[in-house]
Amino acid sequence: MHNQVMLKLGGSVITDKAGKDVIDRQQLATIASTLKESAFSGYIVHGAGSCGHPEAHQYHLDLGADRSNAVGIGVTHRAVTALNRAVVEALQNEGIDAIGVHLLDSCLADDGRLVSAPVELLDRLNALGITPVLHGDVVLDRRRGACIVSGDQVISALSPQLAVGRVGLATDVPGVLSSEGQVVRSITPSDIEGLSIGTSSSVDVTGGMQGKIRELLVLAGGGVESHIFAVSRLQDFLHQRDHGGTVVRMA
Amino acid sequence: MHNQVMLKLGGSVITDKAGKDVIDRQQLATIASTLKESAFSGYIVHGAGSCGHPEAHQYHLDLGADRSNAVGIGVTHRAVTALNRAVVEALQNEGIDAIGVHLLDSCLADDGRLVSAPVELLDRLNALGITPVLHGDVVLDRRRGACIVSGDQVISALSPQLAVGRVGLATDVPGVLSSEGQVVRSITPSDIEGLSIGTSSSVDVTGGMQGKIRELLVLAGGGVESHIFAVSRLQDFLHQRDHGGTVVRMA
Repeated sequence: MHNQVMLKLGGSVITDKAGKDVIDRQQLATIASTLKESAFSGYIVHGAGSCGHPEAHQYHLDLGADRSNAVGIGVTHRAVTALNRAVVEALQNEGIDAIGVHLLDSCLADDGRLVSAPVELLDRLNALGITPVLHGDVVLDRRRGACIVSGDQVISALSPQLAVGRVGLATDVPGVLSSEGQVVRSITPSDIEGLSIGTSSSVDVTGGMQGKIRELLVLAGGGVESHIFAVSRLQDFLHQRDHGGTVVRMA
Repeated sequence: MHNQVMLKLGGSVITDKAGKDVIDRQQLATIASTLKESAFSGYIVHGAGSCGHPEAHQYHLDLGADRSNAVGIGVTHRAVTALNRAVVEALQNEGIDAIGVHLLDSCLADDGRLVSAPVELLDRLNALGITPVLHGDVVLDRRRGACIVSGDQVISALSPQLAVGRVGLATDVPGVLSSEGQVVRSITPSDIEGLSIGTSSSVDVTGGMQGKIRELLVLAGGGVESHIFAVSRLQDFLHQRDHGGTVVRMA
């Protein structure tokens, strides 16, 4: 029943987050090859990394949009959709049939949270053997004009509706790190208050690791475990082996 | 109130329909310049022309889709979205803020007809001063798996919901032509049975001129006139002058 995998590729993993609009095509090729080898079936979501975050930041889209900064919507969307095309292309090159699905086209938000999303459409693509590739994006917002919806919010909003059994987040660190730099192997809602975690210094308009964990706890509340691991351990995650990273669960 | 314009750019106008995936960028630049000069505000829809029709035909998507031909969905969608990017880019080059909106991402169909579409989203883009650029596309279909939705169906389905006052279809002919090659200046529902019109010999999986007129009569039924004219007369249409073409109206 709930046998689908939803895999998030962190923006830092597939772009050079210190630069601007720099796509790591070699990394994408490696990921696609691993997915092919593991007969991956499910949904892929990716972050924006350096393809979208700098643009969203420049136009202050995290604060909303009106006619004064609306031009930033297209600029940001085009940056992240260029990355999306590269992800789809890498999958196609391995013979994985994939189609990019953009939130800006298909979703609406209210005060920063998704209120509509193309769930039936994603389910139908999956049933046809096509891997939908979603991504963090600008989304039109009933209250703010526009907002930034992270790949992590996509995961927490859509996984419960899409028969997803396992969520994986491939990142550029081994897992959630404590402020001492150790991997936190397990996080539950009762841990979150006392948790002291490292922070990222690169531009991220979506809340970085703390935002990510908040989204995943919402998901855990619905009974879906998620896994945060180094992209180099993707194969271990896909084969349900220990990946050395963090598991976010209810208890 | 209903003061928006919805402009359809025929696939034959912006591509070389005799070839495959050949975009006419010079034509797109001329159109964008005319729109800028006329302070265009509204919605743009374009056909697929040689960027999508041959692919849809090759994979028989007009007959539906299942796992045996689903790979054609992505192939066709990518061909027409490449054209869509070229249209958006031409508009951006003239300083018209535009964003591509894809039906495959955002719509569902049932037996070949749209049953959901991102109306609120399009309205919000317009309110922010952004021109949405839609296009004919593959759409997932509840009954057929997938279908082809033409730009003309987009116009007839969405115009009534988007406060559109005038619809224009820029084509590569001067208007609807009789079988004697004369422009039919006016078409009403009572004319359609006796109407003998010319046919196009190029590949068009969406029904060509006859399909176009059927869609526009649906629209006329809702009180919105539409105009079919040569792309060279676009300026006349935008300035509400005689464009020498065809008007489709209720009576």
